[in-house]
Amino acid sequence: MRVMGIDPGSLCTGYGIVEETGGKLTSVHFGSIASKAKSPFANRLKSIYDGLASVMEEFQPDAIAVEDVFFAANAKSTIKLGQTRGVALLAAAKAEITLAEYTPLEVKQSVVGYGRADKHQVRDMVTAILKLKTKPEPLDASDALAIAICHLHTYQAKARLKARA
Amino acid sequence: MRVMGIDPGSLCTGYGIVEETGGKLTSVHFGSIASKAKSPFANRLKSIYDGLASVMEEFQPDAIAVEDVFFAANAKSTIKLGQTRGVALLAAAKAEITLAEYTPLEVKQSVVGYGRADKHQVRDMVTAILKLKTKPEPLDASDALAIAICHLHTYQAKARLKARA
Repeated sequence: MRVMGIDPGSLCTGYGIVEETGGKLTSVHFGSIASKAKSPFANRLKSIYDGLASVMEEFQPDAIAVEDVFFAANAKSTIKLGQTRGVALLAAAKAEITLAEYTPLEVKQSVVGYGRADKHQVRDMVTAILKLKTKPEPLDASDALAIAICHLHTYQAKARLKARA
Repeated sequence: MRVMGIDPGSLCTGYGIVEETGGKLTSVHFGSIASKAKSPFANRLKSIYDGLASVMEEFQPDAIAVEDVFFAANAKSTIKLGQTRGVALLAAAKAEITLAEYTPLEVKQSVVGYGRADKHQVRDMVTAILKLKTKPEPLDASDALAIAICHLHTYQAKARLKARA
């Protein structure tokens, strides 16, 4: 099973694709779509949408997991984050890929085992879980890989429960 | 000049197209895209995006004006509104149509002359300005027509200032 995690951000949107084979998780691809703060917001949304859609097209994930955030620093940032999240969800719906959403707390609990872990701790665990030789850059990409891992962990746990029932 | 106004809403997104010819404003088309509250949010975003994109394709507006809102009733609604707004902005960017944004205050000031006008007062003025025989339904559509009118008023005022300079 191949999962694409997305960490939406109006200045930098991270993505990371993780594959599970026989219980083992490996990193397939990760990166980020940076957009110029000065360019019109609608154009930034277009770059993010086009970038995510082309990664989905190339790597054909079976599922997409997106961070579910309900607030940012202030109302203006919250609207901006919502706009960015909107185009990420749209890209998944357009590609007809199953979508799952996880709160930052769920992602940190699942990957680090500690809901208040910071982005660097998340990256360290992602590096260890995926046996990467170097730490993924930028932090938005390691966050996206963490979201994909969270989805695979949740999926594996559900499969185990099902097998037992 | 033909302007498409958009009033984004996660349950109902209104749109309205107004044409200006020789200083006279007429309604070309208006309507709304309703989405089922029960359907997954990403699918709702897809219906809104596809609906707006097809109206843009059919009516070829010269400009698009979208309501610029920075907050909703609570953080969760703000994110949802942002997501809906995001796909509206994306549709405009994808269609390569000039985009303008106006706050609800600017729209009401421009159309009713009173920044705290309610949606019914806005609809009454829209009906009068566009000489419509019946009041546009739903209110999301009359709000969208108001946003288009606001853009045309602003544009006309700028043109007059330019002519005087």
